[in-house]
Amino acid sequence: MAAEQDPEARAAARPLLTDLYQATMALGYWRAGRARDAAEFELFFRRCPFGGAFALAAGLRDCVRFLRAFRLRDADVQFLASVLPPDTDPAFFEHLRALDCSEVTVRALPEGSLAFPGVPLLQVSGPLLVVQLLETPLLCLVSYASLVATNAARLRLIAGPEKRLLEMGLRRAQGPDGGLTASTYSYLGGFDSSSNVLAGQLRGVPVAGTLAHSFVTSFSGSEVPPDPMLAPAAGEGPGVDLAAKAQVWLEQVCAHLGLGVQEPHPGERAAFVAYALAFPRAFQGLLDTYSVWRSGLPNFLAVALALGELGYRAVGVRLDSGDLLQQAQEIRKVFRAAAAQFQVPWLESVLIVVSNNIDEEALARLAQEGSEVNVIGIGTSVVTCPQQPSLGGVYKLVAVGGQPRMKLTEDPEKQTLPGSKAAFRLLGSDGSPLMDMLQLAEEPVPQAGQELRVWPPGAQEPCTVRPAQVEPLLRLCLQQGQVAAPPPSS
Amino acid sequence: MAAEQDPEARAAARPLLTDLYQATMALGYWRAGRARDAAEFELFFRRCPFGGAFALAAGLRDCVRFLRAFRLRDADVQFLASVLPPDTDPAFFEHLRALDCSEVTVRALPEGSLAFPGVPLLQVSGPLLVVQLLETPLLCLVSYASLVATNAARLRLIAGPEKRLLEMGLRRAQGPDGGLTASTYSYLGGFDSSSNVLAGQLRGVPVAGTLAHSFVTSFSGSEVPPDPMLAPAAGEGPGVDLAAKAQVWLEQVCAHLGLGVQEPHPGERAAFVAYALAFPRAFQGLLDTYSVWRSGLPNFLAVALALGELGYRAVGVRLDSGDLLQQAQEIRKVFRAAAAQFQVPWLESVLIVVSNNIDEEALARLAQEGSEVNVIGIGTSVVTCPQQPSLGGVYKLVAVGGQPRMKLTEDPEKQTLPGSKAAFRLLGSDGSPLMDMLQLAEEPVPQAGQELRVWPPGAQEPCTVRPAQVEPLLRLCLQQGQVAAPPPSS
Repeated sequence: MAAEQDPEARAAARPLLTDLYQATMALGYWRAGRARDAAEFELFFRRCPFGGAFALAAGLRDCVRFLRAFRLRDADVQFLASVLPPDTDPAFFEHLRALDCSEVTVRALPEGSLAFPGVPLLQVSGPLLVVQLLETPLLCLVSYASLVATNAARLRLIAGPEKRLLEMGLRRAQGPDGGLTASTYSYLGGFDSSSNVLAGQLRGVPVAGTLAHSFVTSFSGSEVPPDPMLAPAAGEGPGVDLAAKAQVWLEQVCAHLGLGVQEPHPGERAAFVAYALAFPRAFQGLLDTYSVWRSGLPNFLAVALALGELGYRAVGVRLDSGDLLQQAQEIRKVFRAAAAQFQVPWLESVLIVVSNNIDEEALARLAQEGSEVNVIGIGTSVVTCPQQPSLGGVYKLVAVGGQPRMKLTEDPEKQTLPGSKAAFRLLGSDGSPLMDMLQLAEEPVPQAGQELRVWPPGAQEPCTVRPAQVEPLLRLCLQQGQVAAPPPSS
Repeated sequence: MAAEQDPEARAAARPLLTDLYQATMALGYWRAGRARDAAEFELFFRRCPFGGAFALAAGLRDCVRFLRAFRLRDADVQFLASVLPPDTDPAFFEHLRALDCSEVTVRALPEGSLAFPGVPLLQVSGPLLVVQLLETPLLCLVSYASLVATNAARLRLIAGPEKRLLEMGLRRAQGPDGGLTASTYSYLGGFDSSSNVLAGQLRGVPVAGTLAHSFVTSFSGSEVPPDPMLAPAAGEGPGVDLAAKAQVWLEQVCAHLGLGVQEPHPGERAAFVAYALAFPRAFQGLLDTYSVWRSGLPNFLAVALALGELGYRAVGVRLDSGDLLQQAQEIRKVFRAAAAQFQVPWLESVLIVVSNNIDEEALARLAQEGSEVNVIGIGTSVVTCPQQPSLGGVYKLVAVGGQPRMKLTEDPEKQTLPGSKAAFRLLGSDGSPLMDMLQLAEEPVPQAGQELRVWPPGAQEPCTVRPAQVEPLLRLCLQQGQVAAPPPSS
């Protein structure tokens, strides 16, 4: 994976990306002689996000990368010393300087797998002081990654398998890394591509993009390109002045559409020609800078038909305002009619790309039966998860020195389940999941075909289930600081 | 500022943190011979966030840092070549390799100043190709920073000037950098401190933190600290076994509170003692791990009174569940009664710190007249801005080659105001702001005391205003790639 090669990608995810109380507790543990007590934490969430019925576990690779690189630098220790009491025993800082994750073991749900409330996404065990320090960065790396992956998966389920989904929310993201994380994990959750170039470079996400309104408005039509000539697609024969050719086609297109030839904006057409000269095999038009029907569409058709004469096929059009579904239906009709009129059958299947604040509801409409929309660009809704912008993951101590630990509290929802646990997915005879089950690690592994007594969350009494298959859920991915092979992946 | 020294802090904010269409348009501009056309963009927002009446401009420092460092590395250019057409003229990539911001000029609202819809937060001028490429990273750096600063300022207004506000949302943030950005700009917006250690190290934000429930549950009470002795605060006299001393005080506290001495959890008390041994001058108790009234409060009082006997004053208690206001009122009563009973007046003013999903509404209740709450920790609500998780900033071309440019479109809200502009804040005779005014850059500067004809957004006709003062809003902060002195700051 490309990301492994890039040490800078997660520069912000380093040991001091943590809450100060992790450091003050570290001093407390150390002072109490308990820094090296064996401890185990679980990272989980209490409710599925977005009022939904599932989540996807994600961020594990980032966690493993973070843990393997975990070392406090001198400057880090010095900073901590500056905010801890001045009379703190220097031996504590020596302890911090020597810290790493070489005694940390992590079991986890595989990247991208289904996750449910209460089932650990990560089980982290090791010396108490260090696994406590890891709380905040691990939560930070897992929670948002899982939230975005889940959000993307919900959008994919709404869109169905055919529509292409493009994540384009970098500019709306909560900080640069918010954008990189969003692009990475919306791809994991089922999107086809991202506009984010850095996600392509560092994370191998397919990237996509064409042109914005500023490109269109930057042209007045009076510009003279240094080289207006375009060679035919097959590479044989003389080049053609594409702008002049498009002008000729414009007359035919306007006649066909019943428009005056002066109506389409000359600057928009010049922009389309410039883009087509740069991308003759990947020409796309952005239709709504001035007027879709009186300018964008005829200009697109003129340039597309000029390109077609040279053997190139235009790829798509994009709409970024108005009633996207309705316009797509009408544009497809125009494409079909023009394909027949000008005998260019490929024009019928030019992609229609739409964007503009598309949320789950708008997506459902765009994805409905018969929709002529092919590609849907989603920004804010996938990246910032406005329905619920944080997962609310927690990281709870479940055992110290082999003894179970529990937060009792007067708020029942915040009580924790004590003890080191194993987790299993119980499946029916058709392979469909029945439930996920937690039990203490020392209990015997449940067997397929046997009746099991289980206690669903919130139930007043236990019930029984007889799974046809039993799958262990948590996989060893870091053992005493070493990556366990094979790397975890669903 | 500490951040200036840290080249890694914004590793994710680098030239390829952009939308691919910026690169495809760059090729289009280049192919059309327009890469070096003089262009100007404005970065602004269309509506104040959260349904409010103002925003704070923020992120400018990050932008300046980004622009000064802007260079495409070989690996960046190679990646772009891999996603652009294979027959792209190599001279285009040579152009990219040579790009920097040495011809870019930026005017901006000062960091932290009031911003309103339509008034540019940034005016960016320079060669068309490069200022187009800057769109996405600048939006990414400004939008979220401004959103969080605005959100924090709203929370500060609700809290009033007295309550101390602690940002503690790192674990809920949208990625590691989302957390760093949030901590930095919630401090700008009026918070007192952050839990985020990295924000302290890199951005100079005051950091704060004490202990979590895991620290409390990690102790059973049977642990034996290697050194249970604590020297008196004045440094004279023999050390005292703090745990034993707290045990003695516990009996008095329980008698005073009418509790059995066995009720308070011994593990919680051991945790408090351990924390107090590490932080005798900054002891705080987290009260709600088991039961505030039957365990957390008596254990805190026992340890605080033991410390007090040695000349130390406990600093605070934290509540993280239940009715925070009601508990704070009752805890203050207990503190007052205990202060009188045990003749320790300082106990009356021990800080009461509260946290637990505090939003604007909950904050208003906690900040009401008579509230005994002193410090309020806010996480998700400040960091993720759940009321509106993105600002919706835009970056629009307003002039090319000195000629105004406009996106007309059929969606009136998306129309832009063409031309290079100047912006002024008009103030009344009492110094209060009347309105912000945009005009074309070449128009004469408005004068105080003169009647001005202005056209408020959405108005059907102009109106007149006679400002007592006129302040220019946009300040030169980068001139042809060089930082203009003094650095912009409100």
